[in-house]
Amino acid sequence: MGKRIRVTVWNEFLEEKKDDRVKAVYPKGMHEAIAASLKMKPDFEVRTATFEQEEHGLSESILNETDVLTWWGHQAHEKVSDQIVDRVQRKVVEDGMGLIVLHSGHMSKIFRRITGTGCKLKWRDSGERERVWVVSPAHPIAQGITDHFDIGKSEMYGEPFDIPAPDELVFVSWYQGGEVFRSGCCFYRGLGKVFYFSPGHETYPIYFNPDVLRVIENAVRWSAPEPTPKPIRGNAKPLEEIPAK
Amino acid sequence: MGKRIRVTVWNEFLEEKKDDRVKAVYPKGMHEAIAASLKMKPDFEVRTATFEQEEHGLSESILNETDVLTWWGHQAHEKVSDQIVDRVQRKVVEDGMGLIVLHSGHMSKIFRRITGTGCKLKWRDSGERERVWVVSPAHPIAQGITDHFDIGKSEMYGEPFDIPAPDELVFVSWYQGGEVFRSGCCFYRGLGKVFYFSPGHETYPIYFNPDVLRVIENAVRWSAPEPTPKPIRGNAKPLEEIPAK
Amino acid sequence: MGKRIRVTVWNEFLEEKKDDRVKAVYPKGMHEAIAASLKMKPDFEVRTATFEQEEHGLSESILNETDVLTWWGHQAHEKVSDQIVDRVQRKVVEDGMGLIVLHSGHMSKIFRRITGTGCKLKWRDSGERERVWVVSPAHPIAQGITDHFDIGKSEMYGEPFDIPAPDELVFVSWYQGGEVFRSGCCFYRGLGKVFYFSPGHETYPIYFNPDVLRVIENAVRWSAPEPTPKPIRGNAKPLEEIPAK
Amino acid sequence: MGKRIRVTVWNEFLEEKKDDRVKAVYPKGMHEAIAASLKMKPDFEVRTATFEQEEHGLSESILNETDVLTWWGHQAHEKVSDQIVDRVQRKVVEDGMGLIVLHSGHMSKIFRRITGTGCKLKWRDSGERERVWVVSPAHPIAQGITDHFDIGKSEMYGEPFDIPAPDELVFVSWYQGGEVFRSGCCFYRGLGKVFYFSPGHETYPIYFNPDVLRVIENAVRWSAPEPTPKPIRGNAKPLEEIPAK
Repeated sequence: MGKRIRVTVWNEFLEEKKDDRVKAVYPKGMHEAIAASLKMKPDFEVRTATFEQEEHGLSESILNETDVLTWWGHQAHEKVSDQIVDRVQRKVVEDGMGLIVLHSGHMSKIFRRITGTGCKLKWRDSGERERVWVVSPAHPIAQGITDHFDIGKSEMYGEPFDIPAPDELVFVSWYQGGEVFRSGCCFYRGLGKVFYFSPGHETYPIYFNPDVLRVIENAVRWSAPEPTPKPIRGNAKPLEEIPAK
Repeated sequence: MGKRIRVTVWNEFLEEKKDDRVKAVYPKGMHEAIAASLKMKPDFEVRTATFEQEEHGLSESILNETDVLTWWGHQAHEKVSDQIVDRVQRKVVEDGMGLIVLHSGHMSKIFRRITGTGCKLKWRDSGERERVWVVSPAHPIAQGITDHFDIGKSEMYGEPFDIPAPDELVFVSWYQGGEVFRSGCCFYRGLGKVFYFSPGHETYPIYFNPDVLRVIENAVRWSAPEPTPKPIRGNAKPLEEIPAK
Repeated sequence: MGKRIRVTVWNEFLEEKKDDRVKAVYPKGMHEAIAASLKMKPDFEVRTATFEQEEHGLSESILNETDVLTWWGHQAHEKVSDQIVDRVQRKVVEDGMGLIVLHSGHMSKIFRRITGTGCKLKWRDSGERERVWVVSPAHPIAQGITDHFDIGKSEMYGEPFDIPAPDELVFVSWYQGGEVFRSGCCFYRGLGKVFYFSPGHETYPIYFNPDVLRVIENAVRWSAPEPTPKPIRGNAKPLEEIPAK
Repeated sequence: MGKRIRVTVWNEFLEEKKDDRVKAVYPKGMHEAIAASLKMKPDFEVRTATFEQEEHGLSESILNETDVLTWWGHQAHEKVSDQIVDRVQRKVVEDGMGLIVLHSGHMSKIFRRITGTGCKLKWRDSGERERVWVVSPAHPIAQGITDHFDIGKSEMYGEPFDIPAPDELVFVSWYQGGEVFRSGCCFYRGLGKVFYFSPGHETYPIYFNPDVLRVIENAVRWSAPEPTPKPIRGNAKPLEEIPAK
């Protein structure tokens, strides 16, 4: 490839500090687990950003140096600044920044902006088995995942998930307790690509699962923007005479 | 409504004659079970047709009097006449006849024609539980089905199902043995609407299940054509002068 | 049908008061022209609402009595209250209210909320011819429009239109000056249906054009909600034992 | 990239031999014009194949060495062997071979197989201007095409085009005579990607137009398969016990 991809891994990073069960699994925060995996790829440049940093760590200059942003949030969704959400949305739509929304990020402001819907779902946290099935075997985000993979202990997310029909559906999950979920969903918005991926409850070591990490790596590659000139919009002149070609 | 809908219920009707397990469940054939349910709707006119009839019971005149055709086939897919398949496809695409493909009909010639793909899937016949989840709650085919319904003993059909991404995904099934399946899928082809619905293994009394029958009724209503003039195609004249309106 | 459909026709209603060219075409406002046409349908109950009314005429109680809302706005997009936009979006997504966005409403807050994108486009106001082509002849919104219709003087709206790929594309427009535009686009969001229809510049008598009015009538019928129970979301219990059916 | 892409350019190659107007533009056949352009890319390996060759030049071994097949046909659609069409379809669906269908290939057996529809359209051959607009600016097939490009003399193809809604719509064409057309359409079928691109009438030098050739090059790159293991289908075992990960 040669092309370098600059990834910013964003995490709310609150529960890791105050909940011992989370701290036990992710002592440095989920962002560090995700970032550590992505840093092993020689063509990725990885940084992290968290809620409590200034501007949530997502200043204009940092986003200008970000090709793909991953987003994990839960308790502080409503406390995320509208101005930062505007900025992230604009970077996706107008500049083509990739966006990967993880797990409980389904209720984040940015994901509800992208979808236009309420994004609610069923859930149950009983540490049950999840089996993630590939429904689009040739999709770039499914590369390296043959057929399915398992997560031994997971939080159940169930249908009906209040999203628009995704532009591409890559994964559907099965849960031991009887539910199914569209767990890997692609959306195109403006120049940007958005992927929602549901595995990732904070009390289980899901971001150490190599299949989960492979999917996140694939999604980074898939959503990284190609250089695209700004589309021409606004007041337009009529057709000139066209010389025959 | 007032509008009458003419339904032709097509069934291969071979296994009911030679397999005692099937005969025990459907002594008159699956088509009669499905038709009996549909006949209870005062606005439906229902007839049946089967493989061994002349022209498989699908003469030009019968199809001309059919608004919606349901299709159950299995062992004799390859013995269905190409000429009849051409006719059915043309009625769907050019005249807007609705088509509801049931269970093992996924490998029928007509469904492979409609999809352009191989339509293969995983399967296991062990009488396991299936739970059918609604993923599009406002879809007309889901009306009357709140959230999900259960089939006590079912044949498993599993992903990856080799179909194009459906234009609308209505149901996803969960199976006790660990699989998921896109069990209710809508496709638009020409003027016609096509619905694939996977429940219906021949050795279980699935076509007596009131939820399954409600889905089939809904699909008949959804796929029944509205009168649509033939689209204008072929050699065309250029723009006339348009008087200002 | 028998079913009554309650329509609220919303209009910014500012330019009709201060611009003589607009006043000359729509002395009572565009909303009254649209409403007058819809009122001729015996199964429609039609009211109007405008920007300068209290709560923009869109109180909770009025929206509770609205099946379908049509939206025309232009200069005051940014002055529309966020609280009212929240309310409209919630009615669409959670209660299934239909929403028909007209012409310059493409830049309204509510449409950008629904799409998640910037919704910009090309434009030119030179009173040129527009030819609206049907690309989905069997779509309910195209009923009564065979092939195409013409608008003698129109404002050009041109691609690339910054919207997500519509769930259904019904119309594509041709313009004399050399552009094309996806002029009739359907989006599904939660329980609600949304239709964007581009014809309707305020200085031309487009809302007296019978084809344009037929499309709006069709879109009202298409987007009117069917009674749908609230989807079951939130914390869920695992699979109970299922008795065999 | 490093990866090599093996392209087979297929052409009916009948009209170039018997129609002087065609011969004047493409003395060696359209396939040689297309192939000459593709051969300039160092990572492409290009061969040609034509209708009158044995097995239409598309033996099993040649297809096994083909990553992407381009298809131009017109008069001989019905004379193309069903067996070869089966083979091409299977290579697309099961092995992921890319397929690019050009111009009058819209009525080819292979394209009607892929779409499941009749693929008819409006047409007019009067050498009028065509303007091809980008509607998906970030799509890989639009790279290098900013906004639009022009074809001085073209055959008009007009809506309603009888295809399923494409999975991705890249281009829409404007014609001087008043029509529009979805001129660049992507379809996913099994493991394969299919692109339909309408410019290319045989009496105009359209396959010398650098924008047209750039689109074909882009489509080759987009549709070239990534190595994907064969999806697992058929009889399946139930869920084993999953060790916690």
